[in-house]
Amino acid sequence: GLATAAAPSSVKIGLIPADGIGREVIPAARTVLESLTDGPKFEFVNLDAGFEYFQKTGTALPQETLDILKNECNGALFGAVSSPSHKVAGYSSPIVALRKKLDLYANVRPVASVKSPAFPNQRELDMLIIRENTECLYIKSERVEVDPETGLKVAWADRKITEYASKRAGVMAFNMALTRQKLREQKPLEKRFWKQNPRVTIVHKSNVMSVTDGLWRETVRAVKEQNSEKYSGVDMEEQLVDSMVYRMFREPEAFDVVVAPNLYGDIISDGAAALVGSLGVVPSANVGDNFVVGEPVHGSAPDIAGKGIANPIAAIRSAGLLLEHLGHTQQALKMYDAVDAVLAEGKILTPDLGGKSTTTDVVNAVLKNL
Amino acid sequence: GLATAAAPSSVKIGLIPADGIGREVIPAARTVLESLTDGPKFEFVNLDAGFEYFQKTGTALPQETLDILKNECNGALFGAVSSPSHKVAGYSSPIVALRKKLDLYANVRPVASVKSPAFPNQRELDMLIIRENTECLYIKSERVEVDPETGLKVAWADRKITEYASKRAGVMAFNMALTRQKLREQKPLEKRFWKQNPRVTIVHKSNVMSVTDGLWRETVRAVKEQNSEKYSGVDMEEQLVDSMVYRMFREPEAFDVVVAPNLYGDIISDGAAALVGSLGVVPSANVGDNFVVGEPVHGSAPDIAGKGIANPIAAIRSAGLLLEHLGHTQQALKMYDAVDAVLAEGKILTPDLGGKSTTTDVVNAVLKNL
Ligand SMILES: CC(C)[C@H](C(=O)O)[C@@H](O)C(=O)O
Ligand SMILES: CC(C)[C@H](C(=O)O)[C@@H](O)C(=O)O
Repeated sequence: GLATAAAPSSVKIGLIPADGIGREVIPAARTVLESLTDGPKFEFVNLDAGFEYFQKTGTALPQETLDILKNECNGALFGAVSSPSHKVAGYSSPIVALRKKLDLYANVRPVASVKSPAFPNQRELDMLIIRENTECLYIKSERVEVDPETGLKVAWADRKITEYASKRAGVMAFNMALTRQKLREQKPLEKRFWKQNPRVTIVHKSNVMSVTDGLWRETVRAVKEQNSEKYSGVDMEEQLVDSMVYRMFREPEAFDVVVAPNLYGDIISDGAAALVGSLGVVPSANVGDNFVVGEPVHGSAPDIAGKGIANPIAAIRSAGLLLEHLGHTQQALKMYDAVDAVLAEGKILTPDLGGKSTTTDVVNAVLKNL
Repeated sequence: GLATAAAPSSVKIGLIPADGIGREVIPAARTVLESLTDGPKFEFVNLDAGFEYFQKTGTALPQETLDILKNECNGALFGAVSSPSHKVAGYSSPIVALRKKLDLYANVRPVASVKSPAFPNQRELDMLIIRENTECLYIKSERVEVDPETGLKVAWADRKITEYASKRAGVMAFNMALTRQKLREQKPLEKRFWKQNPRVTIVHKSNVMSVTDGLWRETVRAVKEQNSEKYSGVDMEEQLVDSMVYRMFREPEAFDVVVAPNLYGDIISDGAAALVGSLGVVPSANVGDNFVVGEPVHGSAPDIAGKGIANPIAAIRSAGLLLEHLGHTQQALKMYDAVDAVLAEGKILTPDLGGKSTTTDVVNAVLKNL
């Protein structure tokens, strides 16, 4: 996870573009990584997965990809995966499987605004969403039966919330709150967006799911309560998921670190992306104790795939997160700063941000600022 | 539901203020109903429920309230319920129970902007969210066990999606799309916000929950497919719940009727409320075939309860929805117009909308416009 060991000076990264614009933004992110000076020595390996790969081969996440990731790589970058428009027998999302198989238990999703003439009405915010990444309804334990009396279908899904998984997501949230605080302290006061105590907001719906979300909430609360010294400087608050979405849009500046069960985290992070211009700029890292997979939050965008106009920023920032979680924080910060500079200038923008630039234009602009 | 029978000329309404500001906004809505000329003859009965009532009596929704609703009333208005800040043994939300016990299977939540000098940057939108109201994770079938190996807790919740409930929610959505179209046609073209075909957007997450959300999606789609003539003029589209929240904030004007399983509907409707100024203006109706309960979307707001400054607009509009679903559409439209006029003028506003007016001020302003 948040590499406390020395950062490896040579890293091998699995590249899994998967579907649609994943094939455009992952190579873009690679180019930026390769252009880092005094970063680690990079090696890359291209790996298969995705819905298109499933259509060709009958499997969405081949064992070979998993083996190479596990045996040879320090981390990976995943592009995006297309969702079939109708039910397809045997198909199951490879990114959900990857998270589970590599035990990538926290999905770390920073969403921050950048002041730019291109977004004159942009709300200011700087939040980090920690999404539990292995359970909840994502365990995909489902079945359907036919009611013998009515002949109608009845479907069931299991939602699983464990103390084990809730705790490690909570620990990640409180630790990231401290890490963010440390990074902020390196900036002059007037350049800090968040000026209060670090804060963790726990999202749940325990007014309805008193047992599952009750366990989630109490377990995350206990992380602070049982480490009161370590986390004494971190404030803790709670928010019901429906109010969370409401408040996020009314006062996004009120959030620092937000920690949520899997499905709520999925919804909240897409919502937060709407506040910073485009899904095309929001990165994530799927983080486990032994592996990290960077992944843009956006999807495969079949409508613009192949046109060379996909926004590479989410993928580039995801590559930064990958480096950060491998311990190469200074290189990651360089990448973030270069991206922020391009956005702040507001001239080289892909169409999702109202511009006319191409993926390559944005990559070149980032390289110029690196 | 959408009373096809003649509207009753005399109606008895159960008033269930429940907790917090519910006790202020429900009397406000009653005042407006009583001031309608040429509406039905009203009778009101005050009924108990809520978290405070639970604290006094050990029950959150007394049988007497249910009996009076079922045996004497044509409909009801529910205020708001406080959520305990810690787990309270034996407590369970009375509004969730009411929906289930009276089989109020669709939660109808219109969210529309009103042009007003008070909201200069307000996005224009006019959507109607239909939230399935009886199942999904709201069946509250949960349990917790202890893993014998680790001693750690593992909690489970069942998510139930039936063809039966999905179909009736879908039918409600397509019917409401036609009803809205008819009401629009009574307005001059330039006063219509929505100028395209009526549209139903189906929200789901079948890329992960292929069985439960798969059943939901296919069942709602089948409503149109199996009634192709009746609904030929209604467009149908789909949206994954995470993208839905994103798109709703990026282009809220793109939605007409939105139909969602229970939990997604809960989250989306709070999110939509953020786009129209305040949760304090968003109404809902819990609709069944034989009963309707109007209910503001907001909560009990303990921070402002008792101060006389709660926004009564959501409750007044909910009373309008109640009338509409009892067949008194013209009276409902009068109420909506009066509320819209107050908002459009933008002078008498409660603090949640940036004003300094009281609940009573707003009620009086609405009465003046009635
Ligand atoms: C593609 C889909 C399965 C995935 C998810 O729901 O986790 C995506 O929305 C994400 O946020 O990474
Ligand atoms: C109070 C709570 C149980 C309820 C819900 O989740 O349905 C509320 O949020 C609502 O939207 O009516």
